[in-house]
This record gives sequence, structure tokens and C-alpha cells, in this order.
Amino acid sequence: MKPHRFSPSRNPADNSTQRQLYRVAARLFQQKGYRATSMQDIADALGIQKASIYYYIRTKQDLLMAIARASMEMLLAEGERIARAPLPPDQKLRELLKSHVTLICRNLDLFTVSLRELTPVNAGDHWKEVVALRDRYEALLRAILREGMEKGAFRNLDEKLVGFAFLGMVNWTIRWVDPQGEKSPEEIASVWEELFLNGVRVPRDLPKG
Amino acid sequence: MKPHRFSPSRNPADNSTQRQLYRVAARLFQQKGYRATSMQDIADALGIQKASIYYYIRTKQDLLMAIARASMEMLLAEGERIARAPLPPDQKLRELLKSHVTLICRNLDLFTVSLRELTPVNAGDHWKEVVALRDRYEALLRAILREGMEKGAFRNLDEKLVGFAFLGMVNWTIRWVDPQGEKSPEEIASVWEELFLNGVRVPRDLPKG
Repeated sequence: MKPHRFSPSRNPADNSTQRQLYRVAARLFQQKGYRATSMQDIADALGIQKASIYYYIRTKQDLLMAIARASMEMLLAEGERIARAPLPPDQKLRELLKSHVTLICRNLDLFTVSLRELTPVNAGDHWKEVVALRDRYEALLRAILREGMEKGAFRNLDEKLVGFAFLGMVNWTIRWVDPQGEKSPEEIASVWEELFLNGVRVPRDLPKG
Repeated sequence: MKPHRFSPSRNPADNSTQRQLYRVAARLFQQKGYRATSMQDIADALGIQKASIYYYIRTKQDLLMAIARASMEMLLAEGERIARAPLPPDQKLRELLKSHVTLICRNLDLFTVSLRELTPVNAGDHWKEVVALRDRYEALLRAILREGMEKGAFRNLDEKLVGFAFLGMVNWTIRWVDPQGEKSPEEIASVWEELFLNGVRVPRDLPKG
């Protein structure tokens, strides 16, 4: 893949330069791995001097954290919208699945780095913040599952384990999906909706409980 | 965690020394990451001279590959046994799920390294071999899914996407499971069996097709 080049804006506070920096760094971290990518590599891919990067970001670890935060905030914004919507729990779960799959497929570099490179070792002092964001999303997912179980719409299963199954199924997408591949995010989500919703839902024609 | 120390066997071809090397390397790769771990770190953890390691293994990449091969061969051995067994497809899928979850939980360092660190960049020339082993397992899983669909026992869904859902759900375990935690591999597998089997199975009291 050829690195995308851009001319830095004359206004160094320009948000789009910063966004561009995140995108380029995410692509390099995705391709080469976080630890193997240097600030020099990122500057080269951007076509700017290495010193200029430090105007936007202090350390490589801050850059990793900014990428992680961007991906998690996307998930959380959609997730909180869905959790608040006046929908029955199975519909919320369906929407959350579609939103999560679509966000990953549309922002594959960001999510790959965020999910693959964000270890306690790599995140360092930022780890607590990462965990807090992740916990908010997990809590929101579990609340939907619990609501469905309490209403008798979902099977009475351990909500943590069902939540981890959901997250594993969806997050694992980064490992196999081809953004130029034959399956659209909507097609992937539609098969998994049938699979996962039938997995959690109490069939209507069987006695509940 | 305190590194486990051992006295190298007097017979350098002793298999258990080699196994010990893999276990120690897997634990270090898991804790520090593959790239950040040096052969010196591994020698220190084993309590041997760095030069002695080269008796057993040529490069750090060979070590990564040996760990990956060990974990994949465990999966394949169990998977092939289950695929050949005279069982209906839903029973095979249930057994495969239990075997996969249990192997991950019982060999968490090996599987964490194998699943997390085995990227094309890290694996280098070994990548094709990794992919071939992985493909064998995926083929075996898909064959079980296809058999279930052809027999009308499973819903007619895209078998690749159902297979990736299975692999994601199970492999993601490395990200959250606590080997000293409250859930045993059998308990995890039992919840996921109910979830995943109900997700794929055509309900008996509904018309098939």
C-alpha cells in the first residue's frame, strides 16, 4: 500500500491535520505493529519533518491512546444512542451489533490498532483510561442483555459470558475482514443478527423461563 | 509473577527442556510482547546462558513459530478427532466448542502468543505455514457447519460468517479470561453451547428450511 501524502495545513491547529496524523499513524501501527513504528516513519508517511509532529502530539504512546480513544468514543456514541432509544431489548441488541460491525469495517485501521496494540505494556499510564472507556461499553451491552432476560425475552444465561461472546464475535472481524471483500458490513451484521439473536432469544412458541 | 527457574537437563536433547523453553518464552512474549522480549530475557528467566538457548532454537522467530505450532496442533488433534467421530453435527459443534475453550484456558500463554503476536510481520517466512495450519482448522469447522445445514439441522446461513463468529467468540477468551477466576472452562463452554447451538440450530417445533 502506498502511503497517503498530504500537505500540512498552514494553520497548525487545524483539526484535519491532527485527524490525518491519527489516520496515518493508525495505518502504520496496523501494518508494522506499534512497537516497530517510529515517529520518523510517521513523519515520512506524512511528508513532514519529524519535529513538526510534536506540535500535535507529545509521544508515540499519546498517539496510540488518541487512536484508541477515537475508536472507543465512536462505539460509545452509537451505543449510548441505541441504549437510550425506546426499543425492545432484542431490537437494541440488533442495532448495537450492526453499529459495532459497521464501525469496525469502516474504520479498520483505527479499530485494528485499538484492539490489537492496546495492551497494558503499550498503553502504559493510559491503561486505566482505556479500561474505563471499555468498561462503559461493556456495561451498556450487559444492561441490554439484562433487560432482555428480566423481561423474559432472552434466555437466562450469564450476561457477562454472553457479552464476551458478542464482543469476541464482532471484534474478531479485524482478523479476517477484507475491506475490499465481497461482504458488506450490513451483510455480515445480518447473518450474525440471525445467529446471535436466535442464540439469546427465548423462542416465542416455547414456554418461557 | 516470579519467573519459574529450572536446571537444564544433562541430556540437551531432552524434550522437557525444549518444552520448558517454549513455556517460558510464551509467558514472556505474553507479558512483555514478542518484539520487546529478547533472547537474553528468555535465558535469564530460564537461568541459563544465552548461548545455550541456541542449542534448542535458532532464532526468536523460530521460537514464536514453535509456540504457534504447538497451540495449533493441539486444536487440530482434538478437532480432527471430533470431526471423525460418529456424532450428529450439533454434537460435533458442541464438542469442538468445549475442546477449543478448554485448550485456550488450560494453555493461556501459548494461545495468547499464538493468537495475538502471530502477525505477518512477526512470523516472517513462517507466515505461510501458520496460515496453512489455521486453514485446516477453519476447514474442519466449516465442514461441520455445512453438514448441519445440508442435513437441515442448522439454519441455512453463510458458513464462513458463522465459522468466524465461532472463532471470534472462542478466541477472544484470551482477552478477558482469568485462569484463577470464578468460571471454569467447562462453565464458559456450557453457556456458549446454549447460546451458539440455539443460534445455529433449526428449532425442532418450527418448519425446517
